[in-house]
Amino acid sequence: MSHTTIEWKNYDQLAAASRLQALKNHVSLPEVMTGDNGAVRVATYCTPMAAGLAFNYASREIDDEVLEALADLAKEAQLSEKYQALLSGEVINTGEKRLVLHRLTRGQQAGAVTADGVDKRTFYVEQQKKVADFAKKVHSGEITNAAGEKFTTVVQIGIGGSDLGPRAMYLALENWAKQNGTFFMDARFISNVEPDDAASVLKSIDVSRSLFVLVSKSGTTLETLTNESFVKDALAKAGLDASRHMVAVTSETSPLASSKDYLAAFFMDDYIGGRYSSTSCVGGAVLSLAFGPEVFDRFLQGAAAEDKLATETDIRKNPDLLDALIGIYERNVQGYPSTAVLPYSQALSRFPAHLQQLDMESNGKSVNRFGEPVHYVTGPVIFGEPGTNGQHSFYQLLHQGTDIIPLQFVGFRNNQAGMDVVIQGSTSQQKLCANVAAQIMAFACGKKDDNPNKSFAGGRPSSIIVGDQLTPEALGALLAHFENKVMFQGFVWNLNSFDQEGVQLGKVLAKRVLAHETDGALRAYSDLLNI
Amino acid sequence: MSHTTIEWKNYDQLAAASRLQALKNHVSLPEVMTGDNGAVRVATYCTPMAAGLAFNYASREIDDEVLEALADLAKEAQLSEKYQALLSGEVINTGEKRLVLHRLTRGQQAGAVTADGVDKRTFYVEQQKKVADFAKKVHSGEITNAAGEKFTTVVQIGIGGSDLGPRAMYLALENWAKQNGTFFMDARFISNVEPDDAASVLKSIDVSRSLFVLVSKSGTTLETLTNESFVKDALAKAGLDASRHMVAVTSETSPLASSKDYLAAFFMDDYIGGRYSSTSCVGGAVLSLAFGPEVFDRFLQGAAAEDKLATETDIRKNPDLLDALIGIYERNVQGYPSTAVLPYSQALSRFPAHLQQLDMESNGKSVNRFGEPVHYVTGPVIFGEPGTNGQHSFYQLLHQGTDIIPLQFVGFRNNQAGMDVVIQGSTSQQKLCANVAAQIMAFACGKKDDNPNKSFAGGRPSSIIVGDQLTPEALGALLAHFENKVMFQGFVWNLNSFDQEGVQLGKVLAKRVLAHETDGALRAYSDLLNI
Repeated sequence: MSHTTIEWKNYDQLAAASRLQALKNHVSLPEVMTGDNGAVRVATYCTPMAAGLAFNYASREIDDEVLEALADLAKEAQLSEKYQALLSGEVINTGEKRLVLHRLTRGQQAGAVTADGVDKRTFYVEQQKKVADFAKKVHSGEITNAAGEKFTTVVQIGIGGSDLGPRAMYLALENWAKQNGTFFMDARFISNVEPDDAASVLKSIDVSRSLFVLVSKSGTTLETLTNESFVKDALAKAGLDASRHMVAVTSETSPLASSKDYLAAFFMDDYIGGRYSSTSCVGGAVLSLAFGPEVFDRFLQGAAAEDKLATETDIRKNPDLLDALIGIYERNVQGYPSTAVLPYSQALSRFPAHLQQLDMESNGKSVNRFGEPVHYVTGPVIFGEPGTNGQHSFYQLLHQGTDIIPLQFVGFRNNQAGMDVVIQGSTSQQKLCANVAAQIMAFACGKKDDNPNKSFAGGRPSSIIVGDQLTPEALGALLAHFENKVMFQGFVWNLNSFDQEGVQLGKVLAKRVLAHETDGALRAYSDLLNI
Repeated sequence: MSHTTIEWKNYDQLAAASRLQALKNHVSLPEVMTGDNGAVRVATYCTPMAAGLAFNYASREIDDEVLEALADLAKEAQLSEKYQALLSGEVINTGEKRLVLHRLTRGQQAGAVTADGVDKRTFYVEQQKKVADFAKKVHSGEITNAAGEKFTTVVQIGIGGSDLGPRAMYLALENWAKQNGTFFMDARFISNVEPDDAASVLKSIDVSRSLFVLVSKSGTTLETLTNESFVKDALAKAGLDASRHMVAVTSETSPLASSKDYLAAFFMDDYIGGRYSSTSCVGGAVLSLAFGPEVFDRFLQGAAAEDKLATETDIRKNPDLLDALIGIYERNVQGYPSTAVLPYSQALSRFPAHLQQLDMESNGKSVNRFGEPVHYVTGPVIFGEPGTNGQHSFYQLLHQGTDIIPLQFVGFRNNQAGMDVVIQGSTSQQKLCANVAAQIMAFACGKKDDNPNKSFAGGRPSSIIVGDQLTPEALGALLAHFENKVMFQGFVWNLNSFDQEGVQLGKVLAKRVLAHETDGALRAYSDLLNI
């Protein structure tokens, strides 16, 4: 790739953005998706992803003309160059003056990146190896509790990115691992500062056979330290030595790093934000303990392959960039304020919650990377639940509500657990797949009915990511797809997608409340809540 | 109450709606919530709810003038009269020509209602009594499995309203019941047609000691019947007689009602929609089995008391009506497209998912109750996760995103499980409460900072429902509050909030896919998914 100078322009400074604006309401889905043309679109508007997945965007409001305008936008906004700059270790997180390196945890897509005087890829691989060795010793019984019994449960203590991503990934592979003989330990998660969260997890496990993974980059996260004490209390009450039951995932400079309170410490650094840390030790420790390091490695391979695809400069060959660009069209041209993520896979039940953080925390910003206010909308609201459950719930509004909400379906041809049953001539898995196909068409084309109450206008855009089965590789590719999508959108909006200053004010005020240093309405609210 | 004639007018036909429109951006939260005035607002804009809860709306964008305009709207739209008509058994569900009677499952707020030749309150109470007797026999060991062992687990098989509400209510009271000695049986839920859902539940329980509650009003819901077969297969494989392990919750006319395949059948009817059925036998069976009928009864009491409050014609004394009206102002005047529900209570982890169905399925409509298109926005997108978890996730966008999203907080002064720990001078529960107070103020007032990246504009409206503890009564009141809110908003928008025709088209098309009766894009999608 030639080295062009990168210019960081606002979205509304781009000539391609104006041209895109002229294409508002350019495509009528009920028109283009009907008849043979619809079938041609399904065949045409489909791009391979990593790990055998495919991104099919036939039912989004695009055609060749819109795609051309989006390609122009990608070029003018230098999206591929910016991705290369990120991969090469430039300071993309301008607010906190940091590199953005989570992709290095799973592969190396550009030259070596050195920071803090070390090669970062080497550093991340070393940490993974440490985790893998530790997990194997736990599985083999080389590391046990004081009574010499094997650990059966791993409990992650963390919040935000230390919770949502790893939890979503664990749930995504739990059934798969059980079915494939790689299920070593049950995992539980304690996140909320509310004491009932920890209490309820502790009641559900045998603490004497549990290993706790404390995740805090700084070693100072209030919720996490509070929950650690909660757990240590429980261990002490059970007559157990806490230091034989706890490991830390933290930064090398944190007070936890060299503490004797932990069996082991695995390191992350400032170049990986919480919401991007599932492929670092933050996800690595719990997932390697639960499913074994080989499964975690396959997960990383899937993510790395998708990261590589994302370097493609032809938007039609780059599903992550394409998804991002169509999202820009939907948000900034069509004016849709939210996006629903709808996995037809119970294993992905918490994947929408992870994407909610990933997307809304990255691009829910009103100033550009230079701190100047932007005059266009940025990140949408992200929400979602697995299908077919959602069909019996909020799909009513998606079909017939007054706002249009773009939909991101995910579906697999095969289930994970290998159990199924034939009812009325079809398996449950076939019913599931039939439903997602049917929904896409119902949303796109609608259906006229003499009873206006039963009439569907259609014109509700969606895409689907399809795969054979939700394997570790497929999960890695899926995760990386959305990370890359969010990154490209942040580039288009000229945001710093890698800080989260918006969460700070609440923390400061909460401390003030606890110190009883408040007045006015904050004092009144504190009184109302009896603090 | 005098009998005035009820007129069903569209929102944009109301004179009060125009007057309300003139009050757009009338209140600046950073202004009114600062200093002593803010404290006065917290004290003033607070309305008692049932079960000791309070609805505090100081940080929503209202003042006395806006409230007066909202009171005018309520009066002109005859909201209280319409509620009375509903309570009296009028055909409010015009699409399906049905009465709307879910409130009769928990109390009688108006005169007797007769339908199908019976007094409906009597009918619902009879069914509850049947459920209570059955649950007591299960708990006492009078009803056991074939080996004479007590049942230890209850598994609800249902989808949509037969799943989301009961599941959310079960999780809400699980810790409370354990702490209060009223925890009789573990509950699990099977909903998704995806076979992995049932497989994973079945692997986690002892089927020989499990009682399955099959919930299907018509006895024909595809997902539910499929999962029933799945479960029957598993029972048969374990050498068990399925009919000794299953009960049905269904309508009297369904094929399940008199089947010998079930230990018992409890009845619901067409006057209670799925999303409103948590207080009927749909919630009653699983909750009475899990926590005992007394707890279920206390839950009903809380809901009934809130229903009664909702009959108040003074909007300042009616928290449900007030919340509805302020929501109308936010949606139709201020133009906010979504609302977040943020319970600071891990027990309410699935309550937002229930509200998502309740609200979006009820009011996600584009035609009025006469089937005529409406020319204003109706139901918003509803999403949410418990705090403090959400704070470490999507709150970034809520604080600093380009769209404003009204927030509905819920918080309790005390936790449920009775375990807590003091760290840095405060308990976890105090930290939790301090965080919600702090967040409300951070959203309302924001904070200027020289670094624009750390600057918060504020002006982000929220309200909070506060209580001492999440008890069965409080949960009932909370549930009824939102049901009533959604009802009043549906009245303002002149919608039929009690049908869900928007879910039908997908079902029809899915059947066509399974029968291989497709062409064009639907055929192409079916091929893509290997059906």
